[in-house]
Amino acid sequence: MSLYKNQPLKIYNTLTSEKNTFVPLHQGHVGMYVCGPTVYSNVHLGNVRTFMSFDVIYRYLIHLGYNVRYVRNITDAGHLTDDGDIENDRFVKQSRLEKLEPMEIVQKYTVDFHKVLEKFNFLPPNIEPTATGHIIEQIELTQKLIDDGFAYESHGSVYFDVMEYNKRGFNYGELSNRNIEELFANTRDLDGQNEKKNPQDFALWKNASPAHIMRWPSPWGYGFPGWHLECTAMSTKYLGEKFDIHGGGMDLKFPHHECEVAQGKACNGTSPVNYWMHTNMLTMNGQRMSKSTGNYILPMELIEGENNFFEKAFSPNIVRFCFLQAHYRSVLDISNEAMVASEKGYNRLMEAISLIKDLKPSSDSSFDVNAWQQSCYDAMNDDFNTPILIAQLFEITRIINLVNDGKETLTTDDINIVSKTINDFAFNILGLKNEMSSGNNAEKLSGVVQMLIEMRNEARANKNWALSDEIRDRLAALEIHLKDGKEGTTFTL
Amino acid sequence: MSLYKNQPLKIYNTLTSEKNTFVPLHQGHVGMYVCGPTVYSNVHLGNVRTFMSFDVIYRYLIHLGYNVRYVRNITDAGHLTDDGDIENDRFVKQSRLEKLEPMEIVQKYTVDFHKVLEKFNFLPPNIEPTATGHIIEQIELTQKLIDDGFAYESHGSVYFDVMEYNKRGFNYGELSNRNIEELFANTRDLDGQNEKKNPQDFALWKNASPAHIMRWPSPWGYGFPGWHLECTAMSTKYLGEKFDIHGGGMDLKFPHHECEVAQGKACNGTSPVNYWMHTNMLTMNGQRMSKSTGNYILPMELIEGENNFFEKAFSPNIVRFCFLQAHYRSVLDISNEAMVASEKGYNRLMEAISLIKDLKPSSDSSFDVNAWQQSCYDAMNDDFNTPILIAQLFEITRIINLVNDGKETLTTDDINIVSKTINDFAFNILGLKNEMSSGNNAEKLSGVVQMLIEMRNEARANKNWALSDEIRDRLAALEIHLKDGKEGTTFTL
Repeated sequence: MSLYKNQPLKIYNTLTSEKNTFVPLHQGHVGMYVCGPTVYSNVHLGNVRTFMSFDVIYRYLIHLGYNVRYVRNITDAGHLTDDGDIENDRFVKQSRLEKLEPMEIVQKYTVDFHKVLEKFNFLPPNIEPTATGHIIEQIELTQKLIDDGFAYESHGSVYFDVMEYNKRGFNYGELSNRNIEELFANTRDLDGQNEKKNPQDFALWKNASPAHIMRWPSPWGYGFPGWHLECTAMSTKYLGEKFDIHGGGMDLKFPHHECEVAQGKACNGTSPVNYWMHTNMLTMNGQRMSKSTGNYILPMELIEGENNFFEKAFSPNIVRFCFLQAHYRSVLDISNEAMVASEKGYNRLMEAISLIKDLKPSSDSSFDVNAWQQSCYDAMNDDFNTPILIAQLFEITRIINLVNDGKETLTTDDINIVSKTINDFAFNILGLKNEMSSGNNAEKLSGVVQMLIEMRNEARANKNWALSDEIRDRLAALEIHLKDGKEGTTFTL
Repeated sequence: MSLYKNQPLKIYNTLTSEKNTFVPLHQGHVGMYVCGPTVYSNVHLGNVRTFMSFDVIYRYLIHLGYNVRYVRNITDAGHLTDDGDIENDRFVKQSRLEKLEPMEIVQKYTVDFHKVLEKFNFLPPNIEPTATGHIIEQIELTQKLIDDGFAYESHGSVYFDVMEYNKRGFNYGELSNRNIEELFANTRDLDGQNEKKNPQDFALWKNASPAHIMRWPSPWGYGFPGWHLECTAMSTKYLGEKFDIHGGGMDLKFPHHECEVAQGKACNGTSPVNYWMHTNMLTMNGQRMSKSTGNYILPMELIEGENNFFEKAFSPNIVRFCFLQAHYRSVLDISNEAMVASEKGYNRLMEAISLIKDLKPSSDSSFDVNAWQQSCYDAMNDDFNTPILIAQLFEITRIINLVNDGKETLTTDDINIVSKTINDFAFNILGLKNEMSSGNNAEKLSGVVQMLIEMRNEARANKNWALSDEIRDRLAALEIHLKDGKEGTTFTL
């Protein structure tokens, strides 16, 4: 059952800048935390890529037999665009724009987020905590950091003291490989930062005036929590002071995750996370996606075809298949050509899958199915290398077609292994769906109508006009219209 | 635009026990709060009925031109099955049963809840606050009630003092029409209630030992909030101290809503809600639904056909249509016959709708379309009487068919009014979807196969065995299997 014992997994760890063998803190159990969305606007396609990478990682860990607790938060308060200026609270800004209460903004975009992820066949995480649901925990952590001398109050706000942290022998910058002296040298003193001792200090709690709607009472007056603290509070609560995997987009490495490391170490004296994982960017047509340049597309626009970049709508399945053809640590570039190629590849794979049940078994196999199966595991064990896994799925596609043509052979047992392995990797682990089988009715309908067209052709050849007309008229009554042309008879629904 | 000015709405108000004309506190705006689910198990079909009633109410208010803020909470902490016993915390109980952390239970059943509601085409509320997201607000309210003498601390818990509340001239029992003296006389002194002054006192805050996972710090030590207080805290925060409509199932009238009235009045001196609305029960085959008697079915079991009560699966649309044929204040009984009848009715309605675009207009109308349209509004204006509205939709179904047969006439303008009105009431307000247009393929497939069965019967009658066999075999190749029986030929896909 516990497959993980025979399938040693290596994970690229940002903290060590190399691939490390994965050893969980508690045998058989994995605690994984992924930074979720800030729900003040529609979820980006780049976010979808990040969460899809971790969805596949989660699925693979489950497949290996781990008991995984996957926590992905929702940031619904306190995500400042700039640490120094309260007017930059994203929720407050957006709520003014949309003339909605901040919590209406939160609800609107949380619903959007879940809807989009469901379309792409994501597994829900085990816990999905919100920042507003953990204000008390954040206040407690802030108080502890003040008590221990790692933080100070200033004008009703509380800041983490980076200089003090380093003085105690810790190393702010260790995760993102930054040198703190350089950081200090390169930072401009922004507006409102004068209440900090040093520009690199970051907010744990921000003072808020009565005009600010989203605020809570605290020992330092009314305010709201800093963004970085939220993830420390929630990961500690649900996964403990130290847990296995923490993930997010690479843009979060600094300062967000760097601050989480500092907060964790300052609070508990220990590094909070064993394996830090970061996903790379998504670009479109070779360029960064950006609303301002117009090189931008929302997930729903891509799958509904409402955009100027793609020739047609691509189903969530095809998008998923396309995304997973890049490794999570590589830049992923999407384009019309890439999507069309993915669609072809996906269809080829699904067609091969539909052939499996009808393959004629032989007494010997001409292909080493066990070696192929292990190569699928090897791909995923090598830092979740989905493009190599997909190449292996294409390899078996080729073999299935050759067996079907009588040019290769497989025994019954090997056919069963192929079937099970494809099912595991394509559907359970990569999270694809078989569109062919769900679209069954359309296919059957087309087959049956084709049959009636042939019967009608025969009737016409026999000059049986009554039957020929009856077929045409009865189909028309079902709103299936036949059209006779030079190339034969076609039909429209 | 503001239709509500011409369509006076009456709402049955539990507080006055009569239908009152609806006048919102702020012209053009409606604040509505509905008690949401306690997410420790799969959502009940009875809950679906309640939330569907308020979904239609929400949709109609929007249709009338109101700017509605609809708040429906999620109870994810502190819902005791019995006020006196901490071991009865539903989340803690269920988490022991399922061997999951309480917040994993919350996540699991919140996902289930949203999934079920989406299947039934519910509009999401504008704000969906959680109890755990408002612990601070609940502590603040509790402190205020203590400060004002309406509550007292006892062994680390805080109780609302019902006797004191009544001494100050308020009337605990006014919503549920209960007499407080009788209440006192009829209450047994349950275990653990000896820390209360009186058995009717209810918990605002419950003390919790370290063994209790879901607990928060408070001025009275670690604990968790009482269920009744949660709704007062969240409705006050998002709708104000006084708002328009508060809804829920009739089982919540006492003590939950009664306690909300008391908390609101004690905190703010004013009745928190102008219109209290309560939905009635759902029964199945004439009996109360209950897990213990086995007369029980989950929403997904009903729509997927996995149950012993219904002859087949009924789509969420048919279920919705069936539910709305009872008024929300009447008991709704579901049965196989009721569901089959609803399906027939639904199909008749959708078929009539599909005829509208092809109706031949006349120079005069033989039917008063405006009077019919107003009767649709009258039905909904009379306390959201959906069964009467549906009767009006069947009336127009009859007329459309008569016009189609040339036995009644409608002008182009009147046909447009019919089309718009049906669209408004059937789709936007009742929240139905047109399955004919989306489920087309299944129906066409069935029609075409039926046609082939008849051709095969004819071939067999003519002893044309070759054709008869060909039809059977070619269908089988498409995985459509014919079965010849006494009652004729049927097919399975």
